[in-house]
Amino acid sequence: MLMMQVLADAYHCEPSIEDSDALMAAAVAGAAAVGATVVGESTVRYVPHGLTVAVFLAESHLVLTTWPEHRLLLIDVLLCNPEMDPDVVIDEIVRRLCPAGEVVRQRIPRRIADWPSGADV
Amino acid sequence: MLMMQVLADAYHCEPSIEDSDALMAAAVAGAAAVGATVVGESTVRYVPHGLTVAVFLAESHLVLTTWPEHRLLLIDVLLCNPEMDPDVVIDEIVRRLCPAGEVVRQRIPRRIADWPSGADV
Repeated sequence: MLMMQVLADAYHCEPSIEDSDALMAAAVAGAAAVGATVVGESTVRYVPHGLTVAVFLAESHLVLTTWPEHRLLLIDVLLCNPEMDPDVVIDEIVRRLCPAGEVVRQRIPRRIADWPSGADV
Repeated sequence: MLMMQVLADAYHCEPSIEDSDALMAAAVAGAAAVGATVVGESTVRYVPHGLTVAVFLAESHLVLTTWPEHRLLLIDVLLCNPEMDPDVVIDEIVRRLCPAGEVVRQRIPRRIADWPSGADV
């Protein structure tokens, strides 16, 4: 199975990226938008600023990392259900936290198989 | 600041990738190998198999995801200290969990700046 991990760097975000509740709510809403199931959550706050939020899904996970001093939000989405589009997750998070932002997306293929030469590739 | 996120897919891993204690110990050892500081940990176990381990660092985070049925371990490392080499983290984790494995690494640049056209790029 070939999964596509999407890493998005969202610039010009709202000040709410420094609000841990807003950040977690956006992450959970992103998961809901694609129909993923949340099975765990973690939040870490940095000093003097910055947050990392991880949302663990039945379909793998997503991680949000913020640099509020740069109005920057990094979004990592890995979904092991190929029918779920990671961009749907990112679109929902960006809509909530960076509606006027610029987003750079990178798509990284990851092979879930015994070895890439195997029949499951 | 340009950070290099490294995503590693390690194949032919040991059965210990299904042991949550061994997985977390390897993640923490990987962080220690590069001199990073652990500030939080989370583990999620999937049914019937599979684990996700997240280790939050003062320098960002790393995430390990396993598919034991494929003897596969995915490693994601993001370090916001440019003097720390993510490959040192991955080498330590692979040494412990996939010593006879094949590892595919992908290096993804991520720009910590107000916007890529800024002077901080």
